[in-house]
Amino acid sequence: MEYNKNFYQIRSNDNIFKRIKDERATVGYYDLPYQDTSKIKAYVETVTQQHIVVLGIGGSSLGAKAIYEFLLPANHYQKDLVFLETVDPLKINHCLAKLDIKNAHFVVISKSGDTIETISLFKYLRALIEINSDNCTIISEAKTGLSKFAQDNHITTFELSANIGGRFSVFSVVGLVPLAMVGVDIDNLLNGARRVSDSFFIQQDYYQPIISKARFLVENKGRFNINAIFSYSSALEGFNKWYVQLWAESLGKLNINKTRQALTPIALIGPIDQHSFLQLIIDGVRDKTVTFIKIADLKDDTIIPKSSENLGLEYAEGLSFNDLLNKQADATIQSVKDQEDIPCDVITVSTVDEYNIAKLMFSYQLLVSTIGQFLQINTYNQPGVEKGKIILKESLKETFT
Amino acid sequence: MEYNKNFYQIRSNDNIFKRIKDERATVGYYDLPYQDTSKIKAYVETVTQQHIVVLGIGGSSLGAKAIYEFLLPANHYQKDLVFLETVDPLKINHCLAKLDIKNAHFVVISKSGDTIETISLFKYLRALIEINSDNCTIISEAKTGLSKFAQDNHITTFELSANIGGRFSVFSVVGLVPLAMVGVDIDNLLNGARRVSDSFFIQQDYYQPIISKARFLVENKGRFNINAIFSYSSALEGFNKWYVQLWAESLGKLNINKTRQALTPIALIGPIDQHSFLQLIIDGVRDKTVTFIKIADLKDDTIIPKSSENLGLEYAEGLSFNDLLNKQADATIQSVKDQEDIPCDVITVSTVDEYNIAKLMFSYQLLVSTIGQFLQINTYNQPGVEKGKIILKESLKETFT
Repeated sequence: MEYNKNFYQIRSNDNIFKRIKDERATVGYYDLPYQDTSKIKAYVETVTQQHIVVLGIGGSSLGAKAIYEFLLPANHYQKDLVFLETVDPLKINHCLAKLDIKNAHFVVISKSGDTIETISLFKYLRALIEINSDNCTIISEAKTGLSKFAQDNHITTFELSANIGGRFSVFSVVGLVPLAMVGVDIDNLLNGARRVSDSFFIQQDYYQPIISKARFLVENKGRFNINAIFSYSSALEGFNKWYVQLWAESLGKLNINKTRQALTPIALIGPIDQHSFLQLIIDGVRDKTVTFIKIADLKDDTIIPKSSENLGLEYAEGLSFNDLLNKQADATIQSVKDQEDIPCDVITVSTVDEYNIAKLMFSYQLLVSTIGQFLQINTYNQPGVEKGKIILKESLKETFT
Repeated sequence: MEYNKNFYQIRSNDNIFKRIKDERATVGYYDLPYQDTSKIKAYVETVTQQHIVVLGIGGSSLGAKAIYEFLLPANHYQKDLVFLETVDPLKINHCLAKLDIKNAHFVVISKSGDTIETISLFKYLRALIEINSDNCTIISEAKTGLSKFAQDNHITTFELSANIGGRFSVFSVVGLVPLAMVGVDIDNLLNGARRVSDSFFIQQDYYQPIISKARFLVENKGRFNINAIFSYSSALEGFNKWYVQLWAESLGKLNINKTRQALTPIALIGPIDQHSFLQLIIDGVRDKTVTFIKIADLKDDTIIPKSSENLGLEYAEGLSFNDLLNKQADATIQSVKDQEDIPCDVITVSTVDEYNIAKLMFSYQLLVSTIGQFLQINTYNQPGVEKGKIILKESLKETFT
């Protein structure tokens, strides 16, 4: 075996931090917290339709969806945001049946401009309704087929920089444009992201937890190959799916020594998954780390009322559902900690607003970038999915000719 | 170390089959395909409300939800089925806001009768609207607090046998009653389950694939500790969640030698997760098996139309979305098979009806029972989740006094 100085060697924290700082020059997402949003805010004022419909899949939809689903139950937006992600005809027609498409604005998002799901859906929509500059916005890289189509039809286009990957694009125009259209405070989103970014890059409060956690996960990846998050609010379901993409697509790679690297994400919702996955965590093989995510204040004071008849569990009466939820989280956390051999940590999100979800998401992006440096992989590409795309294209062309 | 004749020993297929046949005498779910449904069918005729609202969590909701979500897009039920599963107040109030509760029938499901989420929600509902024999049905074991409440208030109760666990209860009254209320053909469901059961127990076509797969997964559990399913239709999202519970809660156990056993489930949806998790499967560490689930005929002939302007991908035009979805599945399957070192198999579901979803679900239950026998665990209990429940109860009682 040839000697290779990187072989199994985990670099020092200082070296990793230097590499992350160097990455900032070429990887686009690091700059997003500092962007000017005035053009987006001025444009969305001109959009008058009731339904904002995003056509996009993967990185083109998961980020905005995570933020919208987090904010929706606690807010009352005048408009609604719908995501058409898949080519599954049952799902498409089921979604469209619930919409007044004449009162809809379509945001078509494809970084490459030739995502087969998104473009096929767009063609289908164009057969149903006239698409023009009044009811459509396009988000794509410069000079794609889709941005050329937009130009020919005088449709407003927001350009996505080539150096921002889909799963790192939530704070770019990909996330901000549709979110601003429904009334999300995108400046407060960027405030949250900036808070984390500023702190990390001057090695203040966000630095140490991120680099320590990344190091722990990498040093123990052979033993704990699964990383579960356990989010205690259904408002975090969208965040969970975004986490799975960010983690899986970034960290499942061949590294510089051509050895396979992987950390496998699992995303759970409490208390629902207490009745499903928890048993496996507590009694199963020790192959998982667990991160609990709690929301301290859900801005909801619905109380469990006293029952006139004996239904049991009277000790929960008078408590708010918010408190019950957090006490359930605490009890589950305690029962996992009591095992003493399951690595776990807890993240507490203060409340359900733009600032706090952005802090959570931006710190997860930094965590993934840091893990990627420790693993010595390219965190930002996805070479493994290209093979399937080529096979599909060949099979379709065979049928077509 | 004391000699133990079971230590690391994997039993023969014949021995496992004998044990499964022996289990039938005590484990209740095996008999469900052969039950008489006339009482259920007669009762649901008397339910007149528009919204059927299930209060239940975990095994009390996941099965019916899986079947309803599978059938819904291709069917047009007169009534709708809603699940109130969680104590998350944002989610509860968001769900209730969309309902006319005066035109709702509540199906309260708790095997033990004291599930804290379900009983707390029930108390909350009773403060909002009068609950009586006209708008409520209760499903519980005999002699629980909840079934006593039902008796006192003359509310119809369907009794769940003590020997049927929540995650194996989909074909019991837990699943059948709410599904029959919205118009699902429950006899055709049982036909599907019976087809699989009959075949397995006389060692016909369903026997060999189930026992071989169970054996493979157990023999290779050290190497492949993660079992992903990749379902190619959004109609299978509910099935995916049901699978995760069935697998995780049944197979994460200490075995008869007190060694930790586990197979970890991951549930993916195609093509959405081609843009998320697929990269990790293709290029990551070889720690996963993959089962693809395709639906041959979605009963939908929506076509990708020709585009008047050049949007690219013209080779997909004229194809149905159904065909595109299945060609995407085939291309992904091929790209995984081409790796040559990822264990994978493909299940094809013929179409979206009761018979076919029941076949899929019943064969998964048999697979889990068979794996459990190979692992030498108790597949049907969940001792690990009790600790958290006790901690919660103590913490609530402290606050209460």
